[in-house]
Amino acid sequence: MDLNIPAPRNKRVVIVGGGFGGIAAGRVLTRHGEFQTVLVDRNNYHQFQPLLYQVATSGMEPTAISFPLRKVFRKGKDFHFRMAGVEAVDAARNILHTTAGDLHYDYLVLAAGTDTNYFGMESVARHALPLKSVGEALALRNRVLATMELAVRTADAAERAELLNFVVVGGGPTGVELAGALAELQRRIFPKDYPELDISAMKIYLLNAAPRLLEGFSEESSARALKDLERAGVRVVLGATVKDFDGHAVTYNDGESIPARTVIWASGVIANALDGISTEQLGRGRRVKVDEYNRMEGAENIFVIGDQCLLTSDPRYPNGHPQVAQVAIQQGKQVARNLLSSVAGKAPEPFRYKDKGSMATIGRNRAVAEIWGRHFGGFFAWALWLFVHLLFIIGVRNRLTVLFDWSWSYLTYDRPLRTIIRPAKK
Amino acid sequence: MDLNIPAPRNKRVVIVGGGFGGIAAGRVLTRHGEFQTVLVDRNNYHQFQPLLYQVATSGMEPTAISFPLRKVFRKGKDFHFRMAGVEAVDAARNILHTTAGDLHYDYLVLAAGTDTNYFGMESVARHALPLKSVGEALALRNRVLATMELAVRTADAAERAELLNFVVVGGGPTGVELAGALAELQRRIFPKDYPELDISAMKIYLLNAAPRLLEGFSEESSARALKDLERAGVRVVLGATVKDFDGHAVTYNDGESIPARTVIWASGVIANALDGISTEQLGRGRRVKVDEYNRMEGAENIFVIGDQCLLTSDPRYPNGHPQVAQVAIQQGKQVARNLLSSVAGKAPEPFRYKDKGSMATIGRNRAVAEIWGRHFGGFFAWALWLFVHLLFIIGVRNRLTVLFDWSWSYLTYDRPLRTIIRPAKK
Repeated sequence: MDLNIPAPRNKRVVIVGGGFGGIAAGRVLTRHGEFQTVLVDRNNYHQFQPLLYQVATSGMEPTAISFPLRKVFRKGKDFHFRMAGVEAVDAARNILHTTAGDLHYDYLVLAAGTDTNYFGMESVARHALPLKSVGEALALRNRVLATMELAVRTADAAERAELLNFVVVGGGPTGVELAGALAELQRRIFPKDYPELDISAMKIYLLNAAPRLLEGFSEESSARALKDLERAGVRVVLGATVKDFDGHAVTYNDGESIPARTVIWASGVIANALDGISTEQLGRGRRVKVDEYNRMEGAENIFVIGDQCLLTSDPRYPNGHPQVAQVAIQQGKQVARNLLSSVAGKAPEPFRYKDKGSMATIGRNRAVAEIWGRHFGGFFAWALWLFVHLLFIIGVRNRLTVLFDWSWSYLTYDRPLRTIIRPAKK
Repeated sequence: MDLNIPAPRNKRVVIVGGGFGGIAAGRVLTRHGEFQTVLVDRNNYHQFQPLLYQVATSGMEPTAISFPLRKVFRKGKDFHFRMAGVEAVDAARNILHTTAGDLHYDYLVLAAGTDTNYFGMESVARHALPLKSVGEALALRNRVLATMELAVRTADAAERAELLNFVVVGGGPTGVELAGALAELQRRIFPKDYPELDISAMKIYLLNAAPRLLEGFSEESSARALKDLERAGVRVVLGATVKDFDGHAVTYNDGESIPARTVIWASGVIANALDGISTEQLGRGRRVKVDEYNRMEGAENIFVIGDQCLLTSDPRYPNGHPQVAQVAIQQGKQVARNLLSSVAGKAPEPFRYKDKGSMATIGRNRAVAEIWGRHFGGFFAWALWLFVHLLFIIGVRNRLTVLFDWSWSYLTYDRPLRTIIRPAKK
């Protein structure tokens, strides 16, 4: 079984993953058609991960932050998309094994990203909710709304308390943004939707193992995020390492615990596994070790980019780059350019990351941004955050939709998409 | 186990189902709070069924045509919503059994609508796709897109032909609108998304058991719909009674068959079943027989409205009213008004249907409309169809969203939401 791709006129580059890195590489490679480019992804769409928390909190639709991969590459030269899961790589024979068949490559670009890391805690993995994909964001939205319905329905005070506690684990941008958005739901929406409930009994916790929020940011931004979240009513617990969650109570540190049904795990990631890559080639967080050209150690024609790779040769980043969109985009472009250089007989250029700054939003008019070497907070950071995100979303329609969703929520204080919808079974 | 609803100060009315009928009744009943009103629905949202085909063909999001039931009744007096499935009614004890517990009623308004009717053909029920809910519309969208991905991937010509045949069964408004929208996908979108496929090999069939399309409409409108669909490339087969579908071929009449993986069943409905109602009380299509006050035969305090009821005392409709939104809305209002009259000691008024006309769209600039005793076609009917649907959708935001979606599709010829998204499992 193969994937029914015509034999390439030139060399074939196979890209695994249509995230920020894979798309950046593919766009450069398909500009003129020097290679045959095949993109493999288990989904038929790219997802804009920074706004997943908006989907989870009924502020946006999945399609506002997703984009069909075929449409991304509609004008690409000699481009082929195949929807399939990737199972293993046979580096000796240059073959990629997918759920839909085998695929020969001349060059392989791995951009498969990461998945949620539960650090081996099986009970947590079974009961906590992740937030790494639009499917997971929708499941979280459904869970939050269904939990409120259960809370209305029960006459048991202990059960109601358990239902009304929402615990976010992890104080990075995702955890901070999600906790802030949940606090807005509690303040603006739920009192009107559930007049029968005492909404002040609803409690939102943010548990963070580190001693401060937003560890990648400055101390100043961390303190600002903490202040803003607490002002919004979020109970932030710093230095709280979660030990277990059995579906009814989350325990942390030395036996401290919070009764809760809903725990959202935004606490760590682990690179997606791929059979055929030996453990010696893997580093911290299962990331694949690469040289300064993003080449996998010991392989001439396999490149790994973005969250999935570990590049430690840059003295500025001895533990590897931060796992953020900008690194993936820049590496994708660089690897693609180097492949084109090789066709032209030119030497490749090593990767060097240009940090464009980082930002996180805490809620209405509140954000932190670190850019051009400066730290911003409050309304300006928030407006900047909106602008940059609009800029990076793919597609005119998605930009209009996101802008509309934001404007609507801002003007009406509404999070309108509070429907528990699942596709039917067949 | 009960549903944790406070004991009513006055009498309690329980409404089953948040469709057109249930909402209409609830709005009248909760205006001043003469009753305690409890609405029970298995979903937490109202769905606008006339636009399901838009969701199925990647033109709209489910939330554009859904609306949270709690928000519908936010200003309602003494209103309580409970998300639960309804299992049985105990008319002797005035108790409704739900999946979440039992509920006592003084008056019961059944507005549970219909489900897809496969006329006892188990194989068809197992393999064909229905289109009666937003969940089913999403599943259909996912199926159509996934089928195209499979068609690209296969090198087997027979398999590809099977994958590229899409069969719609049923020539009512849903079938006609869906076939028209699929034809637009084939013409405008798929050639660009799947340049590797010969899209002319894709075939859309519309099988209709009756000798003409849109049976409830005039002969003139039927002929116009047929012409418009055929011009759009749909293969319409009239007088085709489907006998079987095994997942690979649909057979009809005397052994004629079409190889196809995707069959959409828009061919008939059956009223949702409720234990506790005896078979003598049911009529054609499992509809509950009611008198001119929509009272269930033999019950003083149970009313059935909309698609679920069969009212045959009006000589204009000896076989019952058409199962359309307008009947449900008018019956819901009338039943609620009669309940309020009874509080005031006034006599109830019998139901009398005011037919406001009917319409169906076939695609860009094409529709048929029968209104004010006249028949319209072409652009005017199409514009009227848009206007009336916008008018009846609940919520300012949903209207803006639907208007935006239509404008976008109209101006760009795009159906942008071509993503296969499912909520994650947990």
